[in-house]
Amino acid sequence: MGGSMSLNPRVVESFNRQSMMTTLGALLVRAEPGVVEIDLPFRSTLSQQHGFIHAGAITSVVDSACGYAALTQAPEGKEVVTVEFKVNFIRPAQGQLFKETGTVINAGRNIAVCSGAVVAWLDTGDTKLVAQMQATMAFV
Amino acid sequence: MGGSMSLNPRVVESFNRQSMMTTLGALLVRAEPGVVEIDLPFRSTLSQQHGFIHAGAITSVVDSACGYAALTQAPEGKEVVTVEFKVNFIRPAQGQLFKETGTVINAGRNIAVCSGAVVAWLDTGDTKLVAQMQATMAFV
Amino acid sequence: MGGSMSLNPRVVESFNRQSMMTTLGALLVRAEPGVVEIDLPFRSTLSQQHGFIHAGAITSVVDSACGYAALTQAPEGKEVVTVEFKVNFIRPAQGQLFKETGTVINAGRNIAVCSGAVVAWLDTGDTKLVAQMQATMAFV
Amino acid sequence: MGGSMSLNPRVVESFNRQSMMTTLGALLVRAEPGVVEIDLPFRSTLSQQHGFIHAGAITSVVDSACGYAALTQAPEGKEVVTVEFKVNFIRPAQGQLFKETGTVINAGRNIAVCSGAVVAWLDTGDTKLVAQMQATMAFV
Repeated sequence: MGGSMSLNPRVVESFNRQSMMTTLGALLVRAEPGVVEIDLPFRSTLSQQHGFIHAGAITSVVDSACGYAALTQAPEGKEVVTVEFKVNFIRPAQGQLFKETGTVINAGRNIAVCSGAVVAWLDTGDTKLVAQMQATMAFV
Repeated sequence: MGGSMSLNPRVVESFNRQSMMTTLGALLVRAEPGVVEIDLPFRSTLSQQHGFIHAGAITSVVDSACGYAALTQAPEGKEVVTVEFKVNFIRPAQGQLFKETGTVINAGRNIAVCSGAVVAWLDTGDTKLVAQMQATMAFV
Repeated sequence: MGGSMSLNPRVVESFNRQSMMTTLGALLVRAEPGVVEIDLPFRSTLSQQHGFIHAGAITSVVDSACGYAALTQAPEGKEVVTVEFKVNFIRPAQGQLFKETGTVINAGRNIAVCSGAVVAWLDTGDTKLVAQMQATMAFV
Repeated sequence: MGGSMSLNPRVVESFNRQSMMTTLGALLVRAEPGVVEIDLPFRSTLSQQHGFIHAGAITSVVDSACGYAALTQAPEGKEVVTVEFKVNFIRPAQGQLFKETGTVINAGRNIAVCSGAVVAWLDTGDTKLVAQMQATMAFV
């Protein structure tokens, strides 16, 4: 979190009010214009039946990353709500840490389209793409 | 849970191993051929910044409902993994309880397509559709 | 088309201006509140490499069906644009005729969520679900 | 098409059998490992009710671009079918030419996840992103 000086204060304030992020143990690590990164360390309380992280935990975090990326591009006085998203799960979410990044592809007046990527950091130091999101956010 | 006699045992056994469902406080209430229903009672630990249930909590549960609906149609000896899903969030997830239902639209040899619906039960006794999923599950 | 008395005139007028529907040979057969049905007869000019109807031809028609279903629910003076859609292709689009139906799941003030189904009619008289859409339409 | 030496022959052969691409007037201009580009020049026969290119025409071409990008990564002897796709329509498809590019994000043994982008070339020489796809392709 050495880069915390670059954290957009509006994103920080909203993130801290999302109890779900605390429940998951997610950490906001980057919030710059158009790009937000949230880390999700492995926790056994978030697992599915095979002990990997549940697709829904992964999705919760990358949804927030995309939403906050959109918030950095929101018109003055507007908030962001998720209209819909689509996520592909590319391989089992194994790893010690999941880096989840939301990026704005296009921000219009009412709608932003975002891309989200979830990369697992393995014990070995390798990284693997585990999920890919495409999301529609509304400015309201 | 008076209808628990109709709970598919394979679904029950797998559901009980999903720590994520315990963390969310989700309850398996129906698991019949092609249809699975999971209840998610409101908890403040699952909220987003406005105090409503986080889209990711809703999504985690309806993903499990769709996956287990597919499992009831899986060929002998096969398991189910989520290939991808898409969810529309129709209104804020306000309510005391969220009934999340996964239904198999089509089950092929390798792929099942499922539909998921999330209905909020309000204090007033009214119900409202809050989210709608379309999911692709693989038999592996 | 015996039921043409039930065709919403606003839908008919817009449909007739969609050159793409003429190019595909699509026929508007139903346009009632919340439900629109368009028929796409098989044409070899719409095929993919194996001689079946191209996924894009199927999609073009079911997108129009969903958009027009939304139009029947649009606030006075508003038009409909497709924000996004997602389509599952369940089996190869074989058949003599494809019945493509768009249905409004929910219509809000600014956004409608629609479901689209594509059913193939085979020579044998059997019908098969070949594709399923979930779409987001905006009222503008 | 000066770069035609780089066109993957398997893609060329399959593309030429897609009558739908001829009907739309689409041109294969690039087919390299993991990336395929197809051009769609404007034609009034492909329009929707406001005279812009129909979302379905755009989608047909970018689906083919994604499918062929996957084909360049297919295991020996396998073909590609579209399992599902999701497309955001970012602005009206105005322009003289639409450059549609499919890129493989990840190719596994059975499934490839692809990203598709549609860029409009305007009279003024400007370019605009008009649509973004995320697609799931199966190797069969």
